[in-house]
Amino acid sequence: MPTVEHIAQVFKTYVESMTSGDVEKIVSLYAADAVVADPVGSAPVKGHAAIREFYAAAAPQVDHMILDGNPRIHQTWGAAPMKCFPKSPAGFCVEIVDVMTFNEEGKISSMTAYWGETNFRPAS
Amino acid sequence: MPTVEHIAQVFKTYVESMTSGDVEKIVSLYAADAVVADPVGSAPVKGHAAIREFYAAAAPQVDHMILDGNPRIHQTWGAAPMKCFPKSPAGFCVEIVDVMTFNEEGKISSMTAYWGETNFRPAS
Repeated sequence: MPTVEHIAQVFKTYVESMTSGDVEKIVSLYAADAVVADPVGSAPVKGHAAIREFYAAAAPQVDHMILDGNPRIHQTWGAAPMKCFPKSPAGFCVEIVDVMTFNEEGKISSMTAYWGETNFRPAS
Repeated sequence: MPTVEHIAQVFKTYVESMTSGDVEKIVSLYAADAVVADPVGSAPVKGHAAIREFYAAAAPQVDHMILDGNPRIHQTWGAAPMKCFPKSPAGFCVEIVDVMTFNEEGKISSMTAYWGETNFRPAS
């Protein structure tokens, strides 16, 4: 089972890689058969190829992304409040909670992103 | 479908009711067949009677509970960072993310609480 420290590091690497636009680094955090739903309820994005395509479209829109408090971690589950600051419109952020499950190797097996239109807020 | 405002109000009422220890108010937020897992991975607590028993044991341990940022809400899903300050030990808080799904009547159909032992922190 992955350690709490490992899972915390994955969340940190995730927001850092979204900030730097390092799509391959993001893909490497995921298991080969991982499933992404962003936002929650979206058609699932399954597997490395589809996940790469998803982040190749999403990451360039991001100016920077930060953790918004400590990730909440229990066994193979984690939920992390985040804020994502898009390149456009400037001066706004999107408040997100990413919920992730992890496999035995510490790779993300699923990610569900919770955010909606009322989570677009002036950046503070 | 419940409105974003309704779901935001449920999260607010939830932490207020945990603070006041109003177990019946908490139970009333849940659908009759709701399922609670607190923390994530626990044996599910199903239905009003079991949920009442769960909160009757949990709520008296809580000094107060607050939202830790805005709930992230999309359609019938919500994820809210929270902090729970137990009566004992004093001076500590537990960082939590509660993920809830809602039914058509706006009642909570499932609640999963994400927190682990590293989320016990000195209250700041």
